[in-house]
Amino acid sequence: MVYMQRALELAQEAVGISSPNPPVGAVLVKDGHIVGEGHTLPPGQAHAEIIAITQAGRFANGSSLYTTLEPCCHFGKTPPCTRQIIEAGIKEVHVAFIDPNPLVNGKGIDELRNAGISIHIDELGREAVEIMEGYVKVMSSGKPFVTAKFAMSLDGKISTSSGDSKWITSAESRATARRLRGKADAILVGIGTVLQDDPHLTFRDADGNLCERQPVRIVLDSYGRLPLDAKLLKEPGLSLIVATDVEEQKVNALTQLGAEVIFVSGQNGSIDLTELMELLTQRGFLSLIVEGGSHILGSFFDAGLVDKVVGFVSPVILGGTKSPSPVGGNGAAKIADSFKLERSNITTIGNDVMITGYLR
Amino acid sequence: MVYMQRALELAQEAVGISSPNPPVGAVLVKDGHIVGEGHTLPPGQAHAEIIAITQAGRFANGSSLYTTLEPCCHFGKTPPCTRQIIEAGIKEVHVAFIDPNPLVNGKGIDELRNAGISIHIDELGREAVEIMEGYVKVMSSGKPFVTAKFAMSLDGKISTSSGDSKWITSAESRATARRLRGKADAILVGIGTVLQDDPHLTFRDADGNLCERQPVRIVLDSYGRLPLDAKLLKEPGLSLIVATDVEEQKVNALTQLGAEVIFVSGQNGSIDLTELMELLTQRGFLSLIVEGGSHILGSFFDAGLVDKVVGFVSPVILGGTKSPSPVGGNGAAKIADSFKLERSNITTIGNDVMITGYLR
Repeated sequence: MVYMQRALELAQEAVGISSPNPPVGAVLVKDGHIVGEGHTLPPGQAHAEIIAITQAGRFANGSSLYTTLEPCCHFGKTPPCTRQIIEAGIKEVHVAFIDPNPLVNGKGIDELRNAGISIHIDELGREAVEIMEGYVKVMSSGKPFVTAKFAMSLDGKISTSSGDSKWITSAESRATARRLRGKADAILVGIGTVLQDDPHLTFRDADGNLCERQPVRIVLDSYGRLPLDAKLLKEPGLSLIVATDVEEQKVNALTQLGAEVIFVSGQNGSIDLTELMELLTQRGFLSLIVEGGSHILGSFFDAGLVDKVVGFVSPVILGGTKSPSPVGGNGAAKIADSFKLERSNITTIGNDVMITGYLR
Repeated sequence: MVYMQRALELAQEAVGISSPNPPVGAVLVKDGHIVGEGHTLPPGQAHAEIIAITQAGRFANGSSLYTTLEPCCHFGKTPPCTRQIIEAGIKEVHVAFIDPNPLVNGKGIDELRNAGISIHIDELGREAVEIMEGYVKVMSSGKPFVTAKFAMSLDGKISTSSGDSKWITSAESRATARRLRGKADAILVGIGTVLQDDPHLTFRDADGNLCERQPVRIVLDSYGRLPLDAKLLKEPGLSLIVATDVEEQKVNALTQLGAEVIFVSGQNGSIDLTELMELLTQRGFLSLIVEGGSHILGSFFDAGLVDKVVGFVSPVILGGTKSPSPVGGNGAAKIADSFKLERSNITTIGNDVMITGYLR
């Protein structure tokens, strides 16, 4: 268990950098010592198992491998890991979770077992799935794992009636929210949020410095209203503008600023979110944080596309019938139709509370 | 400290039953033993100190008194406590908090000190004030202590777009909310809530049984729309209907059902809440729980009449632009104008969170 725990820690490091590959951690153990370890690197580079094997060198022979996901047995951008595990002389393989990818899905295990390697399955499988939730979602549904994130007052408002929202929650909560971005392939907002708040949408470290890898910034902007001086266009990394109907001139101007404009179906200014999700999957996105506003989050819930919720609640009352709450859209007609969160978790952050949970 | 702690426990027992008198606890100690103790009883009956002195009998002589509030020195419905403390031969008095009532306010202490009794002040004073918050509020402002209470989804809705609200929070949270009622002199709701939910508005014990003492049920009902078959009219205790403009026939019908109709100023269907608060103070109310709906809670915040907030948050998403959030009204225009809660507290109740705090 302790070695698999270490493998999970390593896998956690790969979240956000491995996409579209799953974030995997691997540990090689010989005579009670860790002789090699690693996690998945960006696409085209080595998988976790191979890093561990390379690190172990001659100690790999006769060792035990702990890996958070079944080793792959197919040629992708790298050769199959199973072959190298067999060639390295590994005698025992512990796997947290069977790869749901139909190209693998037990075949990797079979290949190892046929080579005379002893196999142990399902150690800390649940923890492994949580780390790989984006990959598992894509494999099972063809859509990325969507986290709905918002910050609100104790009376459920995300801004005042005049649109002021800086800041409802504490600096600590906002830092926590920014760190979440580091684990996602993309951050998505509606054009309304950009026009109102002009956000940076960047991933920053604990000191507030820009991190090297930036999640893609996605703006749902049917008619291309994004101002050319929007702050997010100046940040490193890609800004992806999702539109239905934009003049060529505006597309060119945005492209010259380094942004990319993609077109999807839509009507009355609403974008077909299911089509967009499938498109993002094709582009290799495993996970997405939707940060608002109210209309966009409502559309995601109405379309049944949300997998996880992260809500920050601050001990402040804003009041106001016209002050928006975090999730608009049509919503549930009856309590029985509401989205009940499972495995919900409550964390105190300063005076705020962070409540997270998964949709059924 | 341990004796004052005991006195505070006793005072807590008196909250809700002592009004308009403050809930006070008193303990008499002689040679390290508690020889008498008590708390304030309903108006006209004995004060805490007198119960303790009577219980102690001859042991009162030479004993020390621990009381959560300065003993009274004026004739109200009962004779002054100071006189009986002196006559009983008590040699030392510990007081948690000086009575803010201008008829007392240090004069009780002076009288005891002049009689040669040793005085110790401000032991656990803050805790005593919290227990007596209703009394302290009335003495300092002429208005009752108002607690705004609501239960909402994680996305800040108190009902679905169709008005369904049964139930957003868990049974445990609802039981906790009902127990809060036992400490209040009254529960207040708007007529909208009554028409929509037909609530009982009763105080029940942990087993769900009706308690003997019921807080007064107040319904803000400008035009007397309360149905004569409303459930709350059948419950024990008083229902107080606050109106601006109701036909005599309806007033008579409500009166025959045991309710009382009072008239206050108001315009366009809105009741002058400040006038109402002063009226309730005159009638001896120390504390009030406002339970909604959105419009009424908004009006209380807009009028600056709220002292404490108790919000329950459930891990469920309702969504819906038309689903109301707990506090309507005009609200704050800017975050800087929002109501920031102090001494906020976060309690987990099952999967729900209860967040409480005091307004500045």
